[in-house]
Amino acid sequence: MSSDPRPLVAVVMGSKSDWETMRHADETLERFGVPHECRVLSAHRTPAEPIIAGAGGAAHLPGVIAASTLVPVLGVPVESQALRGLDSLLSIVQMPGGVPVGTLAIGRAGAVNAALLAIAILGASRPDLRDKLRAFRAEQARAVHAEPPR
Amino acid sequence: MSSDPRPLVAVVMGSKSDWETMRHADETLERFGVPHECRVLSAHRTPAEPIIAGAGGAAHLPGVIAASTLVPVLGVPVESQALRGLDSLLSIVQMPGGVPVGTLAIGRAGAVNAALLAIAILGASRPDLRDKLRAFRAEQARAVHAEPPR
Amino acid sequence: MSSDPRPLVAVVMGSKSDWETMRHADETLERFGVPHECRVLSAHRTPAEPIIAGAGGAAHLPGVIAASTLVPVLGVPVESQALRGLDSLLSIVQMPGGVPVGTLAIGRAGAVNAALLAIAILGASRPDLRDKLRAFRAEQARAVHAEPPR
Amino acid sequence: MSSDPRPLVAVVMGSKSDWETMRHADETLERFGVPHECRVLSAHRTPAEPIIAGAGGAAHLPGVIAASTLVPVLGVPVESQALRGLDSLLSIVQMPGGVPVGTLAIGRAGAVNAALLAIAILGASRPDLRDKLRAFRAEQARAVHAEPPR
Amino acid sequence: MSSDPRPLVAVVMGSKSDWETMRHADETLERFGVPHECRVLSAHRTPAEPIIAGAGGAAHLPGVIAASTLVPVLGVPVESQALRGLDSLLSIVQMPGGVPVGTLAIGRAGAVNAALLAIAILGASRPDLRDKLRAFRAEQARAVHAEPPR
Amino acid sequence: MSSDPRPLVAVVMGSKSDWETMRHADETLERFGVPHECRVLSAHRTPAEPIIAGAGGAAHLPGVIAASTLVPVLGVPVESQALRGLDSLLSIVQMPGGVPVGTLAIGRAGAVNAALLAIAILGASRPDLRDKLRAFRAEQARAVHAEPPR
Amino acid sequence: MSSDPRPLVAVVMGSKSDWETMRHADETLERFGVPHECRVLSAHRTPAEPIIAGAGGAAHLPGVIAASTLVPVLGVPVESQALRGLDSLLSIVQMPGGVPVGTLAIGRAGAVNAALLAIAILGASRPDLRDKLRAFRAEQARAVHAEPPR
Amino acid sequence: MSSDPRPLVAVVMGSKSDWETMRHADETLERFGVPHECRVLSAHRTPAEPIIAGAGGAAHLPGVIAASTLVPVLGVPVESQALRGLDSLLSIVQMPGGVPVGTLAIGRAGAVNAALLAIAILGASRPDLRDKLRAFRAEQARAVHAEPPR
Repeated sequence: MSSDPRPLVAVVMGSKSDWETMRHADETLERFGVPHECRVLSAHRTPAEPIIAGAGGAAHLPGVIAASTLVPVLGVPVESQALRGLDSLLSIVQMPGGVPVGTLAIGRAGAVNAALLAIAILGASRPDLRDKLRAFRAEQARAVHAEPPR
Repeated sequence: MSSDPRPLVAVVMGSKSDWETMRHADETLERFGVPHECRVLSAHRTPAEPIIAGAGGAAHLPGVIAASTLVPVLGVPVESQALRGLDSLLSIVQMPGGVPVGTLAIGRAGAVNAALLAIAILGASRPDLRDKLRAFRAEQARAVHAEPPR
Repeated sequence: MSSDPRPLVAVVMGSKSDWETMRHADETLERFGVPHECRVLSAHRTPAEPIIAGAGGAAHLPGVIAASTLVPVLGVPVESQALRGLDSLLSIVQMPGGVPVGTLAIGRAGAVNAALLAIAILGASRPDLRDKLRAFRAEQARAVHAEPPR
Repeated sequence: MSSDPRPLVAVVMGSKSDWETMRHADETLERFGVPHECRVLSAHRTPAEPIIAGAGGAAHLPGVIAASTLVPVLGVPVESQALRGLDSLLSIVQMPGGVPVGTLAIGRAGAVNAALLAIAILGASRPDLRDKLRAFRAEQARAVHAEPPR
Repeated sequence: MSSDPRPLVAVVMGSKSDWETMRHADETLERFGVPHECRVLSAHRTPAEPIIAGAGGAAHLPGVIAASTLVPVLGVPVESQALRGLDSLLSIVQMPGGVPVGTLAIGRAGAVNAALLAIAILGASRPDLRDKLRAFRAEQARAVHAEPPR
Repeated sequence: MSSDPRPLVAVVMGSKSDWETMRHADETLERFGVPHECRVLSAHRTPAEPIIAGAGGAAHLPGVIAASTLVPVLGVPVESQALRGLDSLLSIVQMPGGVPVGTLAIGRAGAVNAALLAIAILGASRPDLRDKLRAFRAEQARAVHAEPPR
Repeated sequence: MSSDPRPLVAVVMGSKSDWETMRHADETLERFGVPHECRVLSAHRTPAEPIIAGAGGAAHLPGVIAASTLVPVLGVPVESQALRGLDSLLSIVQMPGGVPVGTLAIGRAGAVNAALLAIAILGASRPDLRDKLRAFRAEQARAVHAEPPR
Repeated sequence: MSSDPRPLVAVVMGSKSDWETMRHADETLERFGVPHECRVLSAHRTPAEPIIAGAGGAAHLPGVIAASTLVPVLGVPVESQALRGLDSLLSIVQMPGGVPVGTLAIGRAGAVNAALLAIAILGASRPDLRDKLRAFRAEQARAVHAEPPR
């Protein structure tokens, strides 16, 4: 985690057990060299440009943060035990008009994508991040076509 | 629609019947004075900073656009006839790792919120939009507390 | 609404549009003569003994209130447009261990029952309320058996 | 289990296999020193102040008990084999108007929270329990913020 | 309703509002000339050979009756307001091993079919009912093939 | 399996892989000494009094059999791989008016209960089976109350 | 309906009430001039090259036809009353390995698409149909881009 | 894989991880000696007669291919991690009118059936494939009836 410079992204989670999912957001931000910080439950004093919030079950954290900030909030539904994250997804995405949370997929893919979407947002004013994103996409495309399934 | 200046936001939809939902994104952007354009199905040459894509049923448009652009894509699940938008929601939000779509609520609230999230993204480099967003939030809060339910 | 004496129950809702559902809690408390108050979104200074909180969609209000009070919180999932209250229900009931919300049925029946459960809680130290509850139940039973379906 | 003094809470379950879930209610009540008793299927002669009832699948026990008592009934949906507790949840929470069951989350978190909600109800007339609840909450908050996720 | 002779089938329902659905069971039994009785909530003294029980939401009636009788119990999930009878269906069909309820479709079709299944059960010892059932089936088949869709 | 005398119950299943579930119907019938036979997919020449049909996924067997016989058909939804038997349940229970299938719970409990319901149907004309059912119920009740959960 | 020449497509439905949906398959085939026939429930003697089968609820018709023919069977889930066609969809699409039904969307769109897929299948050996399909697609694309949403 | 002659069927998948499911389509085509090819994500230059496309989660591949070709497209919903393929199924089957995807079951059975449906489509002009299909069906039927479940 590049925590020394001013964090550009805050990764917040509802409980320590969400770390298993949210560390994939952390790793993706790390890979792109984006200064960020990771916290449990608290996002009050964060000066970050976008905020990534993950939670499971009756997942209120992303919406509560979104109601108290003007920066974009991205939500990650963490997979829950009984209902496999369907409860997390609906609790995050079905926000009333006025308080948006940009919601990603349930679980690991959602955590990775929240980081990538945060990087796309930051990329508007940071050409180096947009270049890294372009390179990442090109590499993804190559990986897909490199080897046949058998 | 403020279509004269370079559009900052592109609102794209999967079919004309999605307009009934997506016009709420258009109206919200209009209210904030954000130059934008609205199109059916085509987003190829759009130089917009964020893209709002709405679609219903097996809703591929947001994901397909997201795979072909580096700017943030926000998805609006349009309410479908039989399954009430649950199909639209899952088709948009459950993107694989690598191609994020920031997904909002099903239907009208989602269209309004996609516009507000686009404005929050633009606000990073446009203090006037962030100020308008702050004013909008304050007005919302006043409206909520102004009259008792009876 | 018996608002003059100190309110014993606070009825809180996420938005004014929830009133159509939550007024059934209000009417039930009125019928039992329980002093109470009804508010939108704010429950901070309420000295009530139990709190009834209703909300729809990504319904955070009951859980957020529950995290900030030691008195029992009862949640009413308001029926939402697209997903018919399934989102409201899961957002309220699936709270993590540590912060309970006693959740009732979706919609009108849930609002009535939240009031009745609040009355049962108050009844522990107010024999008159328990007597009224007993009478209400007896009347219900008579109504059921009074007339044949045809 | 503090079974010697008059039990303040009855924990009832639909079958012995529910014990794996309901023991978390038992342990939480134990931790707070609340006299209680645990039984399978029978709650008839219980003089408890609130009743916690857990069941899985077509889970009738909480509703049936609620129809025959004037004290608050709290329901715990036990996770079922095929439908992961969605059947248990709907069978408990969707009670008709007139017979409330305050329903908690599916599984272990619900059992813990049913105990905490019962303690909150008892706390109205027992300041020592309310104090313990306040201490428990403070400890929870400290635990959350004590260690960073990594 | 042929209520004079000893009723062979008891039709029981959870509330008067279930009559709109359950009257289709009544009408089907009437059409076959099967002595039966219709009641709300009470099935205690019924000497019927099979029992049809309809209920909606957290629908406990069929299972509770099944636990207290040795005759076959057939359950009809009545369509509920918010969840369209999915809650009713799961509350009736997901009975634990030991207490069977033979469950039919949600709503009107289920009420008709509960009556037809009751008639099939009675037909084992009443050749006239089995003959009527055979005639009914033949008539159904003719009706299906009688007219083309246009 | 008591296959020598004329089988009173036919247990039919959609594929050999359903046997893992349906053997619980077989064992229950065996325990009650009910002559029966078990077959895969074919029920044409069966002179049984009730038929138990189990199938998974798009589970057509119970409905297809019900359309071709006048004896009561009981359906057992076998748990499927992806959707955990929700598809099996809806494919069996949601029969149109005119062709009833009395449907039991998903999986093992449903197979046991189909056998018990078949026995209850047979019991109308066989007092010995009704007596065994009464004894079975009494034993169940004793087992429930015999040992405390701890 | 072009019923004079040998029908190339059979449109079969589970009940007359499915006609409201299935007539959209009929109209699409008519528009392309494809000889076809429409029937309720019976597909035995049909020499058609593909078969379109629509049904609702516990929808067995498509699977039963598929098990008895070697030509491609296309299934249309008709929207049902209570569960909005989710039951129809799962009953048709979740066929076991060995008996395929190519399933289309719930309701009208599915009926139109079943006809278009049948035409695509016929087009392999009938260049005129493939040409008509190409023209239809081009016209669709023009219609989409012809007028802006406002 | 018979890749030497011109491939008659293209098997396309959304990511390499779909191969675990889609190899069952490959094996079935192999068993029938149908020339085919398997690719990840790309189907542009494929001259195949039908196309089988498998994908999971927000599964856009089958619909995107269907929009760009006139040959029949068959979709296989790959089982996803959190929602067990319900998201994959709805993303593939709920296509709007105009662009059909013939959808098969979730997972392995769907992959096998997509191959069998492709073979049935090819069989219209290749009597040898139809003969092999007839033999396969006869063998299936024998296997089902060959051994009793015990």
